[in-house]
Amino acid sequence: MNPVVGIIMGSQSDLHIMAEAAKFLESVGIKYELTVVSAHRTPERMLSYARSARERGLQVIVAGAGGAAHLPGMVASLTSLPVIGVPIKSSNSIDGWDSVLSILQMPGGIPVATVALDGGKNAGILAASIVGATDEEVAKKLDDFKKSLKNTVEMSAKDLEEKGWRGFMEKD
Amino acid sequence: MNPVVGIIMGSQSDLHIMAEAAKFLESVGIKYELTVVSAHRTPERMLSYARSARERGLQVIVAGAGGAAHLPGMVASLTSLPVIGVPIKSSNSIDGWDSVLSILQMPGGIPVATVALDGGKNAGILAASIVGATDEEVAKKLDDFKKSLKNTVEMSAKDLEEKGWRGFMEKD
Amino acid sequence: MNPVVGIIMGSQSDLHIMAEAAKFLESVGIKYELTVVSAHRTPERMLSYARSARERGLQVIVAGAGGAAHLPGMVASLTSLPVIGVPIKSSNSIDGWDSVLSILQMPGGIPVATVALDGGKNAGILAASIVGATDEEVAKKLDDFKKSLKNTVEMSAKDLEEKGWRGFMEKD
Amino acid sequence: MNPVVGIIMGSQSDLHIMAEAAKFLESVGIKYELTVVSAHRTPERMLSYARSARERGLQVIVAGAGGAAHLPGMVASLTSLPVIGVPIKSSNSIDGWDSVLSILQMPGGIPVATVALDGGKNAGILAASIVGATDEEVAKKLDDFKKSLKNTVEMSAKDLEEKGWRGFMEKD
Amino acid sequence: MNPVVGIIMGSQSDLHIMAEAAKFLESVGIKYELTVVSAHRTPERMLSYARSARERGLQVIVAGAGGAAHLPGMVASLTSLPVIGVPIKSSNSIDGWDSVLSILQMPGGIPVATVALDGGKNAGILAASIVGATDEEVAKKLDDFKKSLKNTVEMSAKDLEEKGWRGFMEKD
Amino acid sequence: MNPVVGIIMGSQSDLHIMAEAAKFLESVGIKYELTVVSAHRTPERMLSYARSARERGLQVIVAGAGGAAHLPGMVASLTSLPVIGVPIKSSNSIDGWDSVLSILQMPGGIPVATVALDGGKNAGILAASIVGATDEEVAKKLDDFKKSLKNTVEMSAKDLEEKGWRGFMEKD
Amino acid sequence: MNPVVGIIMGSQSDLHIMAEAAKFLESVGIKYELTVVSAHRTPERMLSYARSARERGLQVIVAGAGGAAHLPGMVASLTSLPVIGVPIKSSNSIDGWDSVLSILQMPGGIPVATVALDGGKNAGILAASIVGATDEEVAKKLDDFKKSLKNTVEMSAKDLEEKGWRGFMEKD
Amino acid sequence: MNPVVGIIMGSQSDLHIMAEAAKFLESVGIKYELTVVSAHRTPERMLSYARSARERGLQVIVAGAGGAAHLPGMVASLTSLPVIGVPIKSSNSIDGWDSVLSILQMPGGIPVATVALDGGKNAGILAASIVGATDEEVAKKLDDFKKSLKNTVEMSAKDLEEKGWRGFMEKD
Repeated sequence: MNPVVGIIMGSQSDLHIMAEAAKFLESVGIKYELTVVSAHRTPERMLSYARSARERGLQVIVAGAGGAAHLPGMVASLTSLPVIGVPIKSSNSIDGWDSVLSILQMPGGIPVATVALDGGKNAGILAASIVGATDEEVAKKLDDFKKSLKNTVEMSAKDLEEKGWRGFMEKD
Repeated sequence: MNPVVGIIMGSQSDLHIMAEAAKFLESVGIKYELTVVSAHRTPERMLSYARSARERGLQVIVAGAGGAAHLPGMVASLTSLPVIGVPIKSSNSIDGWDSVLSILQMPGGIPVATVALDGGKNAGILAASIVGATDEEVAKKLDDFKKSLKNTVEMSAKDLEEKGWRGFMEKD
Repeated sequence: MNPVVGIIMGSQSDLHIMAEAAKFLESVGIKYELTVVSAHRTPERMLSYARSARERGLQVIVAGAGGAAHLPGMVASLTSLPVIGVPIKSSNSIDGWDSVLSILQMPGGIPVATVALDGGKNAGILAASIVGATDEEVAKKLDDFKKSLKNTVEMSAKDLEEKGWRGFMEKD
Repeated sequence: MNPVVGIIMGSQSDLHIMAEAAKFLESVGIKYELTVVSAHRTPERMLSYARSARERGLQVIVAGAGGAAHLPGMVASLTSLPVIGVPIKSSNSIDGWDSVLSILQMPGGIPVATVALDGGKNAGILAASIVGATDEEVAKKLDDFKKSLKNTVEMSAKDLEEKGWRGFMEKD
Repeated sequence: MNPVVGIIMGSQSDLHIMAEAAKFLESVGIKYELTVVSAHRTPERMLSYARSARERGLQVIVAGAGGAAHLPGMVASLTSLPVIGVPIKSSNSIDGWDSVLSILQMPGGIPVATVALDGGKNAGILAASIVGATDEEVAKKLDDFKKSLKNTVEMSAKDLEEKGWRGFMEKD
Repeated sequence: MNPVVGIIMGSQSDLHIMAEAAKFLESVGIKYELTVVSAHRTPERMLSYARSARERGLQVIVAGAGGAAHLPGMVASLTSLPVIGVPIKSSNSIDGWDSVLSILQMPGGIPVATVALDGGKNAGILAASIVGATDEEVAKKLDDFKKSLKNTVEMSAKDLEEKGWRGFMEKD
Repeated sequence: MNPVVGIIMGSQSDLHIMAEAAKFLESVGIKYELTVVSAHRTPERMLSYARSARERGLQVIVAGAGGAAHLPGMVASLTSLPVIGVPIKSSNSIDGWDSVLSILQMPGGIPVATVALDGGKNAGILAASIVGATDEEVAKKLDDFKKSLKNTVEMSAKDLEEKGWRGFMEKD
Repeated sequence: MNPVVGIIMGSQSDLHIMAEAAKFLESVGIKYELTVVSAHRTPERMLSYARSARERGLQVIVAGAGGAAHLPGMVASLTSLPVIGVPIKSSNSIDGWDSVLSILQMPGGIPVATVALDGGKNAGILAASIVGATDEEVAKKLDDFKKSLKNTVEMSAKDLEEKGWRGFMEKD
């Protein structure tokens, strides 16, 4: 079976963020591919990657980049697949604002589904929810994931209520 | 046939932005429903809307709101469907930053696919691309739409090159 | 006697900030309860917490959250009690702006009494001043607290004036 | 009967915002007083206003100001009553940021219950909720207000669903 | 003789800004070409435009775009010619910040020579100064331009000093 | 008698702001000179203006400029007189932030006494207070000015208290 | 002889910044006093400090504070002496913006001479230049200080030119 | 042969950023000079440096500075050569915004070719591309540099694809 999600990033220094997307997709059993594609350093590679994405079987592309982040928007301009953009707070970024705005504020006609700054995991979940929109099994796993989030909160609430904040903070 | 996209907004004053999403979906033949659901004024209505969305046949929810915009994120917490958030620059907004950040910066586990400020049309296109991820016919129409964008640019380029900027600006 | 202040937070990682509120309430002898309630991971729990707050005897709710912080505003939409919101600068926050704006900029009809970023202690003081609005004894203790603030400044002023800044800085 | 809410503003040019607070308090039958007190132009007047507030019977003070807005914070330093701050986007303000930050970011020890930019009405509602924390009758009226908000949304939703967005927009 | 400066813009709605660059180049006798090239709507056109720029005789490219402005950076990635970027405050821009940051904050390796927001004229002057770096005649004209700026200030200073500010303001 | 305050501005378009400084100085009987000096278009003129300021009898320089505003800081580098900087929100400014930051954030060694955005009048008052630091007569007039501010507030307070906000707003 | 400059700060934690002002004043032989005065914790102390400043012989007040920094503006409202404000980036500050804006953006009538964030030294230099406006000896020392700045740059330039950047960086 | 690029910086503390420009120019065989010139501490030195730049054979000036960075803009006002500005995030900077805006937002008539915050290397590349606009040999080397960027990405992509992200991250 072919991958249905393509995860790409502008630089290998973004991998620690984008690996979170991969990890989540694995946890819900969705096949993905992951590689480096740079809008500015490998424009032709970006072009062929995006142009061939649908026919290669992808249903969603997740693209992360920092600074003046053009990769998600450019890929979105080259495919009719949904593209999820992950702004990344890289070393020379102005607190991440550059990356957020250059991914989010796409002009009319070319949307990018932007997630939170450094939101690699959320990008993976969003990709899964797009696959799950028409795939019952994935949808079921997403519901399970939501339940696990709920359980974690409830257990930590119970723990905190029992011990009180003083006891709880000492524990940490 | 049931609607596959649900378009909701926090207030009827957001309609001029959100109608753009509806208009685009119509243009590519995707069925949608559209209504007002307020996170803050009708929290239970929001709960039942989001909880029942998947079983009613929706594949995507598009939610727009201004100011401290909690509707998209709260709906995303209540369903495993993909939720597209549209930040809206309402009258008392601080230049739209409040709406952008309260939709975009969702915590780990609950992503919202955020589009540009006042990006109603782009939300419609993104919803269509999500439907089109597994629907050939919609994908085809999205490709046609991309071609029409390209044609418009090429025609305006040709027009500008022929007339020169002086001639072109007089025309306007 | 039942608690009159409810302190809640979106995640146990917010506890170091919210414990400051609890600590202040203890210092003025106001009974409180403290737990974790997540708007996004336990929406129903949030609903029942807020809906039952008044009948359980609470007079004020203090709610802290980071990032796209929806807890304070959502709780405010579910009760007629005053809700104090504490923006928290969490790890993936854009310098705290996301949390500040998504708590402060509530739409007309649903106010949240927002305090400074990471202002857990100030939230506790504000909660006490709300209780003290109709409770002489608490008001008296708040006046004492204000006097202690004054005394600390006056003593540090006297110390600084006597030693001069060079002597004072060496001391530190 | 004496007023229980004091509404003050730094300049009469803030009245259009602060009158919204007064209007709401009237609608729920809470007595208030309203006047101009400037931190910078009448510092002694501010001092005596704030120092005498509690003994004159006030339970809450609502203070609005624009630009480098010191009135809410200074009043909060002079009384143990809860003080609600209303940032106002005045003519020379930098988009309201100056007013928001100089009211919100109070140092430890002196909280101001800050509401949204130009949030005069929300300040009135918050003042009422503070009075209502220990006053059943006011609490009842706040619940009625919340119900009216809900009804307005539901009616506009019904209207929009019936007419569709095209019909609805033409109506406007 | 071929054009030595290429002026491109993402949309014809940017023309009122970019025409200022053209106008300045005409005033110093530099040949230019001007057209519409959209990074997002005509990516292949952008590629062939940029790839062929040097061999067509261009020495500089001036590229203007608004919102998430990818045109200047993408063109810079496709040519070794200097690329001047003009951020444009378009209608849905967040006060121009999106355009400024997505042009300015290019990653290491691919610089864009960014000018002020809506700085079409300054882009034209900068292009001329680049041509003038090795062209005496253009350099001479740039010096004359600088002198004319100086003269205008000196005349307005003289005028103001003679009439005084009251007389001067009445004149306007 | 020679002028003791020099008022300069980068462009005659700044005059509507800077005339407010002149007007205030007249009202307290301080002699001033006013002219246009551009850091960028007349650098030598700026140099000779600033270098000769003290010997010409000036005690303070008030300098206003918009955008990347270098005039106040450059003048401060060229004289040991106190320099007051007035940030001006000019047409292409990014909401005034550029002007505020390029005047305020001077490096160690070269301070500029910065006033609020478009604060021409406040610059005049500050200049007067500097002159008044060692001039009893000017100090006396500044005290009178402060009293007039106080009177205006007290009268508007009295008016508002008598008429109530409804009566007052109708009057306007 | 009495002090002519008063240096005050809202909290002793600001001393490391404000001591820089004191140090500079000592270096040019200007007498100063230095103490802690808090607008929010000792409002009456602030009032008496500011009201008596001129008669005690002060010519300038330097006031530093962080967060919602009201001290400089409130002191300016209570005296006709020039007041220099030093924004301080304290621990809970939002990157210093709160302090900058609540000091800089004073309303018409009450200017504060604001210096750069954490600009304690520059505040000392500005205070000296105000004293030096009518004091030849201080003016002379300020000129010497400017010369020393120039010498330092020229020596470091010479050093860098001789060694080249590689040699220079190794030296560090 | 004379240097064709002049690299200057406001302070030797900027050297670690500006040395990157020098390093790149060396790698493509372009001769440069590098020194310290401060707009605020050595204004006359700046004047003579900029006024003589063209006749000394320079084709481009690269100027870096932090905080309220006036050096690039002032130099641009004193020469008709292209000036590249490098904003530098110095210690007291407000996150670099002050430096970015005071370099970028130059008024009409005096452009500065601004690169990204701390973009010393990009300034070197841009300077080379300006020289290369009319110098085939340099252009050739820039193309080689672009190819090396591409190769690095492609190799890291291949590496990542072969090892998978887990293997790759362990390697790091």
